[in-house]
Amino acid sequence: MRTLLNRHDKIPFPENDQIHFMQQALLEGRKGLGLTSPNPPVGAIIVDDNGEILGRGFHSKAGTAHAEVKAINDVIEKFGPDRLRGTNLFVTLEPCSTQGKTPPCCEAIIRSGIRRVFAAIDDPNPDHAGAAAAILNEKGVSVTTGILEEDAKYLIRFFQKRIETGKPWVIAKTAMTLDGHTTLPPERGQWISGLESRDDVQHLRRQCDAILVGGETVRTDDPMLTLRGKYAEGREQPERIVVTAVKDLPLRAKIFNDKHAHRTHVYHAQKLESILDDLGRRGICSVLMESGGSLFSHAIGRKLIDEVVFYMAPIIGGGPNTVMPVSGIMADLEDLSVEMIGRDIRVTARVVK
Amino acid sequence: MRTLLNRHDKIPFPENDQIHFMQQALLEGRKGLGLTSPNPPVGAIIVDDNGEILGRGFHSKAGTAHAEVKAINDVIEKFGPDRLRGTNLFVTLEPCSTQGKTPPCCEAIIRSGIRRVFAAIDDPNPDHAGAAAAILNEKGVSVTTGILEEDAKYLIRFFQKRIETGKPWVIAKTAMTLDGHTTLPPERGQWISGLESRDDVQHLRRQCDAILVGGETVRTDDPMLTLRGKYAEGREQPERIVVTAVKDLPLRAKIFNDKHAHRTHVYHAQKLESILDDLGRRGICSVLMESGGSLFSHAIGRKLIDEVVFYMAPIIGGGPNTVMPVSGIMADLEDLSVEMIGRDIRVTARVVK
Repeated sequence: MRTLLNRHDKIPFPENDQIHFMQQALLEGRKGLGLTSPNPPVGAIIVDDNGEILGRGFHSKAGTAHAEVKAINDVIEKFGPDRLRGTNLFVTLEPCSTQGKTPPCCEAIIRSGIRRVFAAIDDPNPDHAGAAAAILNEKGVSVTTGILEEDAKYLIRFFQKRIETGKPWVIAKTAMTLDGHTTLPPERGQWISGLESRDDVQHLRRQCDAILVGGETVRTDDPMLTLRGKYAEGREQPERIVVTAVKDLPLRAKIFNDKHAHRTHVYHAQKLESILDDLGRRGICSVLMESGGSLFSHAIGRKLIDEVVFYMAPIIGGGPNTVMPVSGIMADLEDLSVEMIGRDIRVTARVVK
Repeated sequence: MRTLLNRHDKIPFPENDQIHFMQQALLEGRKGLGLTSPNPPVGAIIVDDNGEILGRGFHSKAGTAHAEVKAINDVIEKFGPDRLRGTNLFVTLEPCSTQGKTPPCCEAIIRSGIRRVFAAIDDPNPDHAGAAAAILNEKGVSVTTGILEEDAKYLIRFFQKRIETGKPWVIAKTAMTLDGHTTLPPERGQWISGLESRDDVQHLRRQCDAILVGGETVRTDDPMLTLRGKYAEGREQPERIVVTAVKDLPLRAKIFNDKHAHRTHVYHAQKLESILDDLGRRGICSVLMESGGSLFSHAIGRKLIDEVVFYMAPIIGGGPNTVMPVSGIMADLEDLSVEMIGRDIRVTARVVK
């Protein structure tokens, strides 16, 4: 934790309380997951010295107000502008110090009378990192950085990957039997994973800007690749990316004919690396890859996948298809998180690069 | 729960306490796992009406004293025989009512002055089930049956399978990558699972009477298939069963030459069903199958496996071998239990028959 304390100032909260308030800000920030690209999701809360939470805000769309400004406006609406004087702002990412599509948040903070800013992490852009702390402190605002850094970095991992590499964060999602089969014998029907897992996939899709599949998936499964029901509320449908080596995609496929057809993009005979670069240039920060085994193996082999989400059904064996049909390609995983989703086991992990 | 209450008797414990005491008896019983074949593991504790645990016992070897008698003797040693009068016996399995290699426990219980018997489950042998309750009750002992039945059935599942089918309970254990590969590329060495998992396998082996592998495993890995260190204490090494279609097993393999070589048994060109029948006839109640994919697939297809234990390393992809290389064979699993063992995920499950 690094603190730039204003002269004569004393932080009114012990460290445990700072962590608690930052958790609240992170909860706000998560509400923006999948809504903010090419910006990162950010959450903020404003607390008085007695620990009362006065206002909340999260960034919900690029070009609209940032989390800090929304939290400030929330306090003004509820209590009037005077209530902001001497308060504490907890924000999951260092406030912006430069003019973007909206005025810099640092200005709004200084103008509001907020006395202290607690930021989880610095701006990942090295040109801006730490700039806010200097600007704010010069104007008499105390700044503390480095609270729940891991959680805050996790929240902006899509954004950070694109800032640093130009490519979106790629999550590969697969439903499989416990031993890696991705198809069942024909008499068992289409679905390997249970209803709860399929619902969870909607939750995952909602966080991502684009869904990527291979041409073979379009030819075989004719999927819709859309957000449904409550998962579609408050955001646009994801872009649908089809990667295909051969040109003959079925023109009657749903993704070419439904009302979101303008969101379907076909990349023909292009390298996956270049496709991801192109998606990054178009402002896409996150891609959910829902491909079959051969594209998945290829992407793992090329080190293009950042994270995997496996829904493992309580079944062993299955049909002819498997997650990684190509022998000799492998990757180590880390940061495993294992959870029961209905009758299935969901394993989420990072790919070690 | 079924109670045969002695006239004028009143059970001094609420149901929660009965569950607590039965848990203690189950803990005792588990100490006998892997030691008691062809008998089941059984645990017992003796409690006075104030809830003080006076004695404990577990069955630790066929032909020696049963758990009830060991608990009775434990009380006698510590407090003398008079302390038993009016006490309560909690036992994980209905006491035996007929003469075996040792005199029937019912007699010892009646003679001891124990007033009440709480048994988790009836004897799984239909000829004996419930017999003890009638005998004991006639002699003025109250009998309650049906406390933590699921846990008690789980404890004797090896024994029960053999009693009911003549075959041992078969657990198939496999170390694999998260997507079902059982080999790694050569440069990654032999071990897929971590040290903690390999230690856990020793724990699993200790519970089983025999380890079964295919000839291919002997030819390729030359394994020892022994209990090591603390896991070898207090019991004999497991029988080692090799199932092979072709005769040419390497005569210099460790299992034919170490000091436990007399415990290695080769079945050549015999059906797995008949092999299991033969093992059952020899008093083997549990078999840990540590085979490769083709024998495993075959056994799953023939419905010969009762339980699977998968150690899944945080790796995707791997070498050419997989858990279920044969397409079209599958089985549903139930009662999944998922636990992190070091860096690996251990999944234990029953095979639905």
